[in-house]
Amino acid sequence: MASLVRTGISIDRDLLQRFDRAIARKGYANRSEAIRGLVREHAVTVNVTQNRVIVGSLTLVYDHHQPNLSERLIEAQHHYRGKVLATTHVHLDSRHCLEVIIVKGRSAEVQRLADQLLSLRGVKHGRLVMTTSGKHL
Amino acid sequence: MASLVRTGISIDRDLLQRFDRAIARKGYANRSEAIRGLVREHAVTVNVTQNRVIVGSLTLVYDHHQPNLSERLIEAQHHYRGKVLATTHVHLDSRHCLEVIIVKGRSAEVQRLADQLLSLRGVKHGRLVMTTSGKHL
Amino acid sequence: MASLVRTGISIDRDLLQRFDRAIARKGYANRSEAIRGLVREHAVTVNVTQNRVIVGSLTLVYDHHQPNLSERLIEAQHHYRGKVLATTHVHLDSRHCLEVIIVKGRSAEVQRLADQLLSLRGVKHGRLVMTTSGKHL
Amino acid sequence: MASLVRTGISIDRDLLQRFDRAIARKGYANRSEAIRGLVREHAVTVNVTQNRVIVGSLTLVYDHHQPNLSERLIEAQHHYRGKVLATTHVHLDSRHCLEVIIVKGRSAEVQRLADQLLSLRGVKHGRLVMTTSGKHL
Repeated sequence: MASLVRTGISIDRDLLQRFDRAIARKGYANRSEAIRGLVREHAVTVNVTQNRVIVGSLTLVYDHHQPNLSERLIEAQHHYRGKVLATTHVHLDSRHCLEVIIVKGRSAEVQRLADQLLSLRGVKHGRLVMTTSGKHL
Repeated sequence: MASLVRTGISIDRDLLQRFDRAIARKGYANRSEAIRGLVREHAVTVNVTQNRVIVGSLTLVYDHHQPNLSERLIEAQHHYRGKVLATTHVHLDSRHCLEVIIVKGRSAEVQRLADQLLSLRGVKHGRLVMTTSGKHL
Repeated sequence: MASLVRTGISIDRDLLQRFDRAIARKGYANRSEAIRGLVREHAVTVNVTQNRVIVGSLTLVYDHHQPNLSERLIEAQHHYRGKVLATTHVHLDSRHCLEVIIVKGRSAEVQRLADQLLSLRGVKHGRLVMTTSGKHL
Repeated sequence: MASLVRTGISIDRDLLQRFDRAIARKGYANRSEAIRGLVREHAVTVNVTQNRVIVGSLTLVYDHHQPNLSERLIEAQHHYRGKVLATTHVHLDSRHCLEVIIVKGRSAEVQRLADQLLSLRGVKHGRLVMTTSGKHL
């Protein structure tokens, strides 16, 4: 289980009051939770920069009338060296599908898979999110 | 069905050659496809800025040992004014879950839901992607 | 003068150790300084979202052979409703100039000026940074 | 001198009409200019990813009452392996200064200098922009 420690910071009173107001609007229960959020966001960015193992979620919108696209999407996922954890499919309208592909792997490999899928003909738009594998957070 | 038109652009030879090389590395079949990709990315950004209806995919990593968190995540989704299209859940390790929540709605509302869920105690990290609803793309 | 207060946060030991290592590599003297940095970054983002008065620095690279471009750049700055604080010009090569325009104003107005200058023919590339006016930070 | 070539793309009529409206609002004279803008933005991102020589503009806001800060800012710039092209200084208020430091060098070196300066005690906020050295654009 994760073990908690306490740490103190000194900060300008005015800045802290503004921070408290801003995080209250977003719904944070308290300041400690919000600051942990900033530290974790920093940690994830470091992991991405250092090509550590991360979890990526790639959101694609594509035209399912495009010939062979489904096969190519599946083919690329099978050749991916990391691990595909799950895929979710949503029918947006009669023509467009949205797919979220959740993968695990080193950030550079995940980025390469995303580049490959996003460049397929018939893929209209997409974005990749890199988040944590849950370790050390 | 979408109707295609042709348009021409003039561009520096050197810049175009570099573009061709860069998109070939990413896997694009041809230049036209890659430029359409840039135009679509631009269109999605405009939609987000103008608070149009978009589709969002919110990726969350959370600690399922956190008391009441699952209830709060579901509660917030039920109060969301837009539409939740699908949710996918992955067990990352004995402690951490990843959830992707796919929603449709105006970009400001989607952002508000994301802020609310990301600020819940026990949510370790998360990021929101805004993409197209498929219309006009 | 700014008055400092102290606040404490509880945080996972492992996460904190990783944060300490990451910020040491970047050169931070201590943890308190680094966390203040994250809180300030958050504050600036809030100011931008809420259309508060910010300071922007717009970096442009342009081709000075483009007819009338210099006049248009100056014209647009004179019509800007906010305040232009300073402009710096660097000769990159025989053809290209870099200009940094430092402005003060509400974030939406600064963004509009940036869009306007970046769309001028002959402007090859540019990016806008929004930072603090120095107040409450 | 740069030599222009023409290239054609096929694109959905509806998407193109929306693009035309969006770029007109921003002030682009025509579609060709706007698409070149997207291609150049892509080229700059590629240069940054591949650690090519770029030009960076680092915007810093700092408290000039902080002991030794000016010396440290200058010291770090002198140790920077790339080239500092220019520095601009603006007095924001009685306490805060804004400085824009324009540097040339490989993107990773520029990023390292930015990390180093942004972590100095007394530097309140800052952001780095990477743009083109003007070559091949």
